[in-house]
Amino acid sequence: MGKPQQSLAIVRTVAELRAQVTAWHKAGQGVGLVPTMGALHVGHLALVGRAKELAPKVVASLFVNPTQFGPSEDFSRYPRDEAGDAAKLAGAGCDLLFAPTVEEMYPQDFASSVSPGPISERLEGKFRPGHFQGVATVVSKLLLQCQCDVAIFGEKDYQQLQVIRRVARDLDIPVRIEGLPTVREPDGLALSSRNLYLSAEERAVAPALNRGLVIAADALRDGASGAEASAKGRAHVRQAGFDPIDYLEAVDVATLEPLLKLDRPGRILAAAKLGRTRLIDNIPVEP
Amino acid sequence: MGKPQQSLAIVRTVAELRAQVTAWHKAGQGVGLVPTMGALHVGHLALVGRAKELAPKVVASLFVNPTQFGPSEDFSRYPRDEAGDAAKLAGAGCDLLFAPTVEEMYPQDFASSVSPGPISERLEGKFRPGHFQGVATVVSKLLLQCQCDVAIFGEKDYQQLQVIRRVARDLDIPVRIEGLPTVREPDGLALSSRNLYLSAEERAVAPALNRGLVIAADALRDGASGAEASAKGRAHVRQAGFDPIDYLEAVDVATLEPLLKLDRPGRILAAAKLGRTRLIDNIPVEP
Repeated sequence: MGKPQQSLAIVRTVAELRAQVTAWHKAGQGVGLVPTMGALHVGHLALVGRAKELAPKVVASLFVNPTQFGPSEDFSRYPRDEAGDAAKLAGAGCDLLFAPTVEEMYPQDFASSVSPGPISERLEGKFRPGHFQGVATVVSKLLLQCQCDVAIFGEKDYQQLQVIRRVARDLDIPVRIEGLPTVREPDGLALSSRNLYLSAEERAVAPALNRGLVIAADALRDGASGAEASAKGRAHVRQAGFDPIDYLEAVDVATLEPLLKLDRPGRILAAAKLGRTRLIDNIPVEP
Repeated sequence: MGKPQQSLAIVRTVAELRAQVTAWHKAGQGVGLVPTMGALHVGHLALVGRAKELAPKVVASLFVNPTQFGPSEDFSRYPRDEAGDAAKLAGAGCDLLFAPTVEEMYPQDFASSVSPGPISERLEGKFRPGHFQGVATVVSKLLLQCQCDVAIFGEKDYQQLQVIRRVARDLDIPVRIEGLPTVREPDGLALSSRNLYLSAEERAVAPALNRGLVIAADALRDGASGAEASAKGRAHVRQAGFDPIDYLEAVDVATLEPLLKLDRPGRILAAAKLGRTRLIDNIPVEP
């Protein structure tokens, strides 16, 4: 802790956010946005680092979006630590934190929604009905509130990234969307705010989810069908103690439709529960 | 025809549109947008005139949007005359016409949609399922494609105007939405591209729709309930030969929820068929 404490400007209204971004734009400075739900880890800070490479000014948003949580999900117990998050962002070179209230994002008469179409109905969408409509709506709002030039999202939430690309392109939102590879622990576990929920024993088992993806990718590259490869991966994850496995599936990189064999770039995505904690992960697989 | 023929620059791609708007913005010139489906009449030209008052540069768009027509509606026979429309727009002082193809607006893999919520389910929305989702999606796209500072819509399509206000506010689209009062023939008939469909006899009867609205408004101001006033208006419209009357209803100006009595600013909206042609109209009513 030899570093001096850095402080970060925090705004809570769209008007304040726009005033700052407009001033930067008038000064000829591009703006990058890193949308987050807080509980920041090294993966988020990598997004800020990438944003700094792409734009001279970086805004992070911190908003735990109620509309993307299902009724039985962890909205109320989702980890919150704004002061800690602000300090981490300042250290990573972020220039402004936008941390709106729920009322600022969703005033009483708020009623509209953005739907991303079929890409949102598979995989995560099947197990979390309405999740991607919530994501698409709040991210559209954040992009348009900030009027940023580029926005950075982690590949950790790969389907989310593809949903956001789809919506930004379909609605002609004037922004560049950038994905950044998942940051992992040395044992392969993808960094996630939800890793905080894991007990010590669960934490020891958790890397098996990533290992299952690697096993499926190896099988695909060895000529197995998508179904065979996925079954191998699932068997590993199940044996390690994950239960249930919502999905572990090889899909097309862009459409997320099932990949019958490795005849084009693919992605293997998985979601499974370890005790009370639901983890997700994904990796690329090239022919 | 003593006026010299004026010509209007036409662009067909979002890239060309943005290049021109960006150039205007760099020169410090605000941009107004008038979205149209073509078949322009004096009402549309009034929108262009209002846009000229609000912004130094005015873009009109011409796009007959297939997604806002129902399967049994008049998409294929909707009147089209781009050359005539361009000449009218040039005469009205419009600076650029954006006339994209269906493929430019909806590429093959297009999949997203914008829903305006409950305001889109009443009145027109009840009789034209999916209509306002189509409108909300295409108008969101046009606003974001153009990155205009202000966009002008006619009050003739009053529910559409309120839907667009709702969506622009909910999604934080950075634009000001302006409504302009309906332009009418001397006998009260609201100008509409669909008036072209009317036979001479139907044209003579058509003003009864507006008269029915006025009768309902008078009744409301005389203390009648919303239901009584609407019934009076409907009786007039039916007697004139409109059949069926889809609705003629007094509602709150903003939410479009039914108005029980005239205890706040209201709007009376109607839609009814005259022969094969469906006409709509609306008027304000103040306590």
